[in-house]
Amino acid sequence: MKFNLEHAAGDPARGPRAGSVVTLHGSFATPAFMPVGTQATVKGLTPQQLESVGAEIILANSYHLYLRPGHEVVAGLGGLHRFMGWDRPILTDSGGFQVFSLGGLQQVTEEGVTFRSHIDGSLHRYSPERAMEVQAALGADIIMPLDECLPYPVDREYAVRSTDLTARWAERCAMAQLRPGEQALFGIVQGGLYADLRQRSAAQLTALDLPGYALGGLSVGEPKPLLHEMLEVTAGLLPVDRPRYLMGVGTPDLLVEGVARGIDMFDCVLPTRTARLGTALVPSGRLVLRNAGFARDEQPIQADCACYACRNFSRGYIRHLLRAREMLGGQLLTMHNLHYLATLMAAMRKAIGAGRFEVFRQEFWQRRGEAAPDELA
Amino acid sequence: MKFNLEHAAGDPARGPRAGSVVTLHGSFATPAFMPVGTQATVKGLTPQQLESVGAEIILANSYHLYLRPGHEVVAGLGGLHRFMGWDRPILTDSGGFQVFSLGGLQQVTEEGVTFRSHIDGSLHRYSPERAMEVQAALGADIIMPLDECLPYPVDREYAVRSTDLTARWAERCAMAQLRPGEQALFGIVQGGLYADLRQRSAAQLTALDLPGYALGGLSVGEPKPLLHEMLEVTAGLLPVDRPRYLMGVGTPDLLVEGVARGIDMFDCVLPTRTARLGTALVPSGRLVLRNAGFARDEQPIQADCACYACRNFSRGYIRHLLRAREMLGGQLLTMHNLHYLATLMAAMRKAIGAGRFEVFRQEFWQRRGEAAPDELA
Repeated sequence: MKFNLEHAAGDPARGPRAGSVVTLHGSFATPAFMPVGTQATVKGLTPQQLESVGAEIILANSYHLYLRPGHEVVAGLGGLHRFMGWDRPILTDSGGFQVFSLGGLQQVTEEGVTFRSHIDGSLHRYSPERAMEVQAALGADIIMPLDECLPYPVDREYAVRSTDLTARWAERCAMAQLRPGEQALFGIVQGGLYADLRQRSAAQLTALDLPGYALGGLSVGEPKPLLHEMLEVTAGLLPVDRPRYLMGVGTPDLLVEGVARGIDMFDCVLPTRTARLGTALVPSGRLVLRNAGFARDEQPIQADCACYACRNFSRGYIRHLLRAREMLGGQLLTMHNLHYLATLMAAMRKAIGAGRFEVFRQEFWQRRGEAAPDELA
Repeated sequence: MKFNLEHAAGDPARGPRAGSVVTLHGSFATPAFMPVGTQATVKGLTPQQLESVGAEIILANSYHLYLRPGHEVVAGLGGLHRFMGWDRPILTDSGGFQVFSLGGLQQVTEEGVTFRSHIDGSLHRYSPERAMEVQAALGADIIMPLDECLPYPVDREYAVRSTDLTARWAERCAMAQLRPGEQALFGIVQGGLYADLRQRSAAQLTALDLPGYALGGLSVGEPKPLLHEMLEVTAGLLPVDRPRYLMGVGTPDLLVEGVARGIDMFDCVLPTRTARLGTALVPSGRLVLRNAGFARDEQPIQADCACYACRNFSRGYIRHLLRAREMLGGQLLTMHNLHYLATLMAAMRKAIGAGRFEVFRQEFWQRRGEAAPDELA
C-alpha cells in the first residue's frame, strides 16, 4: 500500500489533506468516506450501483463474516473481493468493536476475548492472532488489529489499562500478520476521551511503524467539542506520510470537521441505515421523507444532485415506497445518501487542492443554517 | 394500440403466435411475460435493472395504488409512467381480483362491489365506472374491466350468473372508458372451468369488439390438463388479430404450454416472489439456494445465463445473502428469474419464427427431465 499526500492546507500534520491510497485492487482518493458492507454487501445495492454512487473503497466486518458464512468459506470462494463481486479496495475491521458492542462479551484477558455469537449463542475465543488469521482469509487490502473500543464515559484507571492492552495486542497483530505484502495493517489509537492517554496511545502505536493509523473510540456519545479536541491532540502526533482513519464517523458535519483536523478516511453505517429508515442527507441537513408533506411533492430529493434517485424520481414516489414498505425506497435513499457523501468528499478534495478549504467549510455550515464550530487552532 | 401478428405455427387462432404490440409508450414483442409491479415497483429492482433483464412491459395493480398512495396522487405526480420512472408500456388490472381475493369483500351487486381496505379497514365502493376512472388517472397503456374472478371449484349456477355479470360489467367499462385514444381496454373471458361457459363468455366479450382479450380465473387450483383444455376451447373463439392474455400465469411450464395454445401475454408474481424466498428458476426446474449444499458452490446460478447475477456472483455468495437476510439476495434472484423468463419468451418467439416451436417445446420438457403433456390436438 502506498499513500500519496498531494495537497495540504497549512500544517500537513494537523490540517486538511488531499491525497490517494494505492492498493493491489486500485487506488482511492482521500479524504474518503467508506460505505459499510457489514455482511459482504452494502445493504440493497449491487456493486455496480455502489460504483455508480462514487464509492472507491468499502468496509466489511470480520466479526459478521467470521460467524457467517465463515472466513474459510469466503476464502474458498476466492476471497472477499471475488465473493462479493467488488474488485476495488476493501478494508476489514478486526471484529473487536462488535465483540465489545453486540452484547456477547464473556471475558477479556491478556490473551484475548471470549464471546458468544449474536446469531446462535455459540462460544468463541478471539485473539490478536486469530484476528489476523481471519482477515488474511478474507483478503481485504487494509486490515485492522484487535483492540478494545472504550465506551464514554469510562473510568480513567480502566482506560489506562485498556489503552496499554490495545497497544500490546497491536504489536502481536503486527508480529502475526500473514500476508504483509498484500494487506496493510493499520494501528488503532485509543485512550478514551483523555488527551494524555490519546497521546500515550499514539506514541505506542507509531512506534510500530505501521502503514496507516486509525482513531478508535470516538463519536461514542461524547460532546462534539471533546471529539474535536481529541482529533487535534492526536493528529499532530501521527506521521504525516501515513493515512489517518477516523473509525465509525459519517455524519456530514463530522466529516467536514474531521477533514479540517487532518483525517483522511472515514466509515459509518449512518448514511445507509438512515436511508433505510427513510431519511435523506441534503446540504441543508436532513429530509424525513416519510412525512405527509412530501406526498404530492414532484421535486427530486435534492435539486442539484446527479444521483440515479434524484435524476429519475420524485419525493412523492419515494415517500410512497417508504410507506408501502417497498425495498426500492430504502435502496434509492441509500444511493442518494452515499452519492451525497462521495460528492461532499470530492468537493473537499477540490477545495483543499485549490487552497480554499476554509471557505468551503464556512459555506458548508451556512447551507445548514448553523454556525461553524469555533475557529480552528 | 396496434397488434402485429408476425408469425404463426399452424392455425393462428389456436397455435403458437409471434408478434408485437405497439403502444404510445413503445412496443413489446409477443409472446411476452409481464413482471408484476404491484405498488408501482417491481420489488427490489430499479427501472434500469428491469430493462436490463429484458422486461418490455410491466403490470401494476389498481387496487393497491387506488388505496395507497391514491390514483389522484399518482395522476398529480404525472401518471404511473412518470411516477415510477418507467417509460415503456404498462398494463393495469382493474382491482377486481384483489377485491375478491384479499378477503375484504363485503357485497357484490349489479352495481358493483363493496370492500374493506386490507390496509386500514376503510369501506370502499367500486364499480365498472370507478375502475375506468382509477385506471384513467393511473394512465397505463392497457387497462382491464372490473370482473369477478371465480374460484375453483365453483357451483355451476353461481358460475353462470357471475359470467353474465362480468359480461355486463365489461360493457359498462367500454361505455365509461375515459381515454380510449390512449388506453386499450381488454375484455376478460371468465366462465370458471366449464367449457361451455368459457365459450359463452368469449362470445359475450368478443361482441364488444375490444382491442385485446384476457383469460381470467385460470391457474386457480385446477388440474393442469383442465387449464390446457380451457385454453384450447377458448382460444379458437377469440379474434386472430387481437392479443390474448392469460392472467396470473407465470410458471415456465405454463408459459410454454400457454404459447403452444395461442396465448400472447402472461403475468405472474411467481418469478419475483419465489426469488425473494430464495428459489431460482433454471432450465432443469428450480434451485432452492438456501440449501446447505450450495454454501461452497463457486458456480453461478445457471452456467449459460447472461444476467447480472450469473455474470458476477456464485451460488455460495447468494446463499450467504439469503441466510443473512440481506436484501441483495432477493434482488439478484429477482433479476435472474425475470431474465430467465424474458429469455424463455424470446427463445419461443425465435422458434415460432423459424417454424420449430414444437421442437423447442420438446427440448424444454426434456431439460426438465419430464415428458411433455399429451400431444396437442
